[in-house]
Amino acid sequence: MATIDLNSDVGESYGNWTFGDDAAIFESVSSANVACGFHAGDPRGIRATLEAAASAGVVVGAHPAYRDLAGFGRRFIDVAPDELTDEVIYQIGALQGLARAAGTEVRYVKPHGGLYNAIVHHEAQAKAVAKAVAEVAPHLPLLVLPNSEIQRAAEAAGLRTVVEAFADRAYTPEGTLVSRREPGSVLHDLDEIVEHVLRLLDGKVRAIDGTHVAVTADSICVHGDTPGAVAMAARIRASITGAGFDIASFA
Amino acid sequence: MATIDLNSDVGESYGNWTFGDDAAIFESVSSANVACGFHAGDPRGIRATLEAAASAGVVVGAHPAYRDLAGFGRRFIDVAPDELTDEVIYQIGALQGLARAAGTEVRYVKPHGGLYNAIVHHEAQAKAVAKAVAEVAPHLPLLVLPNSEIQRAAEAAGLRTVVEAFADRAYTPEGTLVSRREPGSVLHDLDEIVEHVLRLLDGKVRAIDGTHVAVTADSICVHGDTPGAVAMAARIRASITGAGFDIASFA
Amino acid sequence: MATIDLNSDVGESYGNWTFGDDAAIFESVSSANVACGFHAGDPRGIRATLEAAASAGVVVGAHPAYRDLAGFGRRFIDVAPDELTDEVIYQIGALQGLARAAGTEVRYVKPHGGLYNAIVHHEAQAKAVAKAVAEVAPHLPLLVLPNSEIQRAAEAAGLRTVVEAFADRAYTPEGTLVSRREPGSVLHDLDEIVEHVLRLLDGKVRAIDGTHVAVTADSICVHGDTPGAVAMAARIRASITGAGFDIASFA
Amino acid sequence: MATIDLNSDVGESYGNWTFGDDAAIFESVSSANVACGFHAGDPRGIRATLEAAASAGVVVGAHPAYRDLAGFGRRFIDVAPDELTDEVIYQIGALQGLARAAGTEVRYVKPHGGLYNAIVHHEAQAKAVAKAVAEVAPHLPLLVLPNSEIQRAAEAAGLRTVVEAFADRAYTPEGTLVSRREPGSVLHDLDEIVEHVLRLLDGKVRAIDGTHVAVTADSICVHGDTPGAVAMAARIRASITGAGFDIASFA
Repeated sequence: MATIDLNSDVGESYGNWTFGDDAAIFESVSSANVACGFHAGDPRGIRATLEAAASAGVVVGAHPAYRDLAGFGRRFIDVAPDELTDEVIYQIGALQGLARAAGTEVRYVKPHGGLYNAIVHHEAQAKAVAKAVAEVAPHLPLLVLPNSEIQRAAEAAGLRTVVEAFADRAYTPEGTLVSRREPGSVLHDLDEIVEHVLRLLDGKVRAIDGTHVAVTADSICVHGDTPGAVAMAARIRASITGAGFDIASFA
Repeated sequence: MATIDLNSDVGESYGNWTFGDDAAIFESVSSANVACGFHAGDPRGIRATLEAAASAGVVVGAHPAYRDLAGFGRRFIDVAPDELTDEVIYQIGALQGLARAAGTEVRYVKPHGGLYNAIVHHEAQAKAVAKAVAEVAPHLPLLVLPNSEIQRAAEAAGLRTVVEAFADRAYTPEGTLVSRREPGSVLHDLDEIVEHVLRLLDGKVRAIDGTHVAVTADSICVHGDTPGAVAMAARIRASITGAGFDIASFA
Repeated sequence: MATIDLNSDVGESYGNWTFGDDAAIFESVSSANVACGFHAGDPRGIRATLEAAASAGVVVGAHPAYRDLAGFGRRFIDVAPDELTDEVIYQIGALQGLARAAGTEVRYVKPHGGLYNAIVHHEAQAKAVAKAVAEVAPHLPLLVLPNSEIQRAAEAAGLRTVVEAFADRAYTPEGTLVSRREPGSVLHDLDEIVEHVLRLLDGKVRAIDGTHVAVTADSICVHGDTPGAVAMAARIRASITGAGFDIASFA
Repeated sequence: MATIDLNSDVGESYGNWTFGDDAAIFESVSSANVACGFHAGDPRGIRATLEAAASAGVVVGAHPAYRDLAGFGRRFIDVAPDELTDEVIYQIGALQGLARAAGTEVRYVKPHGGLYNAIVHHEAQAKAVAKAVAEVAPHLPLLVLPNSEIQRAAEAAGLRTVVEAFADRAYTPEGTLVSRREPGSVLHDLDEIVEHVLRLLDGKVRAIDGTHVAVTADSICVHGDTPGAVAMAARIRASITGAGFDIASFA
């Protein structure tokens, strides 16, 4: 049976502030990108998330970010590459420590937010992130957008890469994501999202201009930060399994 | 030949701010307590310190602290024990990650500043720190004050403890440190400090009231945060080796 | 007509994290204690809260705290008094700046959380807080618990003090709050809370041992951090006005 | 007698970390750009700097920055304009509070580091900074590079602008700064710097290609972050007064 991974961001509460519903999203996804404390995630909350993921049989990955609690890691920061490398190592190491204490282990890396977006095209930061993983945990795969600087940098560094697609994002005729600044970049209609996901399982998407373009992905990213998002994730899971696919981690 | 360890705090710069002279202190000590980012230490600076320690043949330990950059970790914070456990795990894990990248490894743990002082007598926080080490790295010894809550908690948690003394602190007739709030608690005269260290090698100290009391230590803490402190550390090292002792890590 | 003030903590979101429902609580209270960025409150969110308060006709006060985002300012920190003074001045000044931009002004000061609790009995920190207000804005009253160190320190510093009581806290026979560590310290039953508030309007409370004790207050603190809390605040408001009192700020 | 202002960054220590020698630089400059806590400057240290400036008769300005302690505010951060406006207001307000307590007042605004560099060309952030000053303290002039987005935005917002030049930076034939990424962008030779400053007093600079170009400035920025920088500032001051100019604040 063909398999696909579903991944989602978790562990993004911070101290007294809660964000998302990790327990609920664990019912739908196979991989959880766990915040590492720089954009979200206090150590106690991270550990609780790791323990819940372990109980639910969900694989955990590190979700390192720019150091930016006030901006939730969503803003580009022009960090020097050597500093970025060590900041990513620090975050992965910290999560590995908490995972060990929680009886689980970190199985992959997916950068977060503004960093994720930057390393699609920012070669120096992409190389810095790949170098970090290669230095601290070269056995861990990196979850990446296809045809990105980070994919190239990771492969050059000898890392395994796993390609992901997005359940709720529109694509260009070239098979890349429509910029969030463009109208129609984010899909909101549930039926449309389910159709999009099912086409992805078939190795293609319908681009924003209506043409079909080949896109292959080993993982699909879904959101879990609102009740509506959790419900959508559950429906996506049901649609995928209904189509005869198995949902399982790539790691 | 009898051996003794000399330890010092390092890695306490932060971004654009420098603190101490790590390279200079590495010429005198056998063990380096490396800041983990909560009271001091940005990842790039921590890594540079780890690499310099490895080059100098100095053993590195984790120096976890309260989350308090503004206070350099010197102020008591009434952190809940379960949060403290996970904050210490986070810091040790982060340092282990950077150490791996730097080609070395974390070999012991010594809490910093306000946390160090608190867990001499604060039972719940002491247990929380011991639990952290037991959960993330139970093979690592904890550097402790004798007869402290942290010593008891560490031993109850099955951890190895290593007892330390201070080169420049006055002792009570009971063999404990004179509180920093008391006059005469810190020794400033170099000759007096050297005499104190040599007596420590002989298993005793002269207490503040002039009586002699038995104090055994496997490590002696020296400072490296001023040019004077670095020079003093060098003189202490020379005095110890001149007395026929070998300076080597306990780890 | 007799008047009483109702106050509540607001502005406690931070970046991507939301906390409480400021707009809803503004329908019930006359005074809003606005976070100043040290325990909660990013500048954009603080300003939005200030603008909403101004629109709703709610008086705003500064709600300074220990520097502790991770702990929401709820943990005691042993800050040196002179540092605490300047940290409180910094927070009040920052809020005054945002209030000016928002077309309103800061009219009183009420310390938050761990700092509020500490200065009930911690004389040096209480004096430090009073000194801060006296230096930066001596015209502002301080909202205090009666018979507290902060009340004494504020009066010694020439500041006006306004005494507050809590809608949902049990009292000792001496008229002080039952410690949160004791069973029954927090009232949860709505009818009981309303009875307690109505007795407060009459200048007394029923203590935890059933005796009645005189407690006078010019302001009553209510919570707004959950939907239940907002509903309770609305019911308290209705009970107070139903009893013939006017709800209005003391400032 | 013609006058010129000399300005320098101060108050950039943080907690246990010291940076620069504010007392020494106050002997040379007429205006001090005081850190506001986002890139450097804890409240206690800021206040000490404000008090020292007041004693030395040096005018103080606010030196707001991106929220970036780890990067000393030197890195570009893609902050949303409305958030940036409120972050700048917060910082100016905080400094105004501390200045009031220190018996002085904030007399101008000069953005710091990465923010300063960004608003030379980043129109949206430039407008956000100008809006902040206009909303919180419209009477304060902004210290700017000529022909910059911030100069245009400030003037459009009705603010007074004061143009500055740099004592140790090379200029292009167009009268703008040579990028720090280019060789020769920073002058190191003391005699060359003094010649450059004296030419600035005459309304021109020798560009990096040897041509002379008109550059007028009402303030010249000097550094004070190293012993060498402090000595250079003293020599620049002596050269300026030796040329018959008076050194005095523009504010």
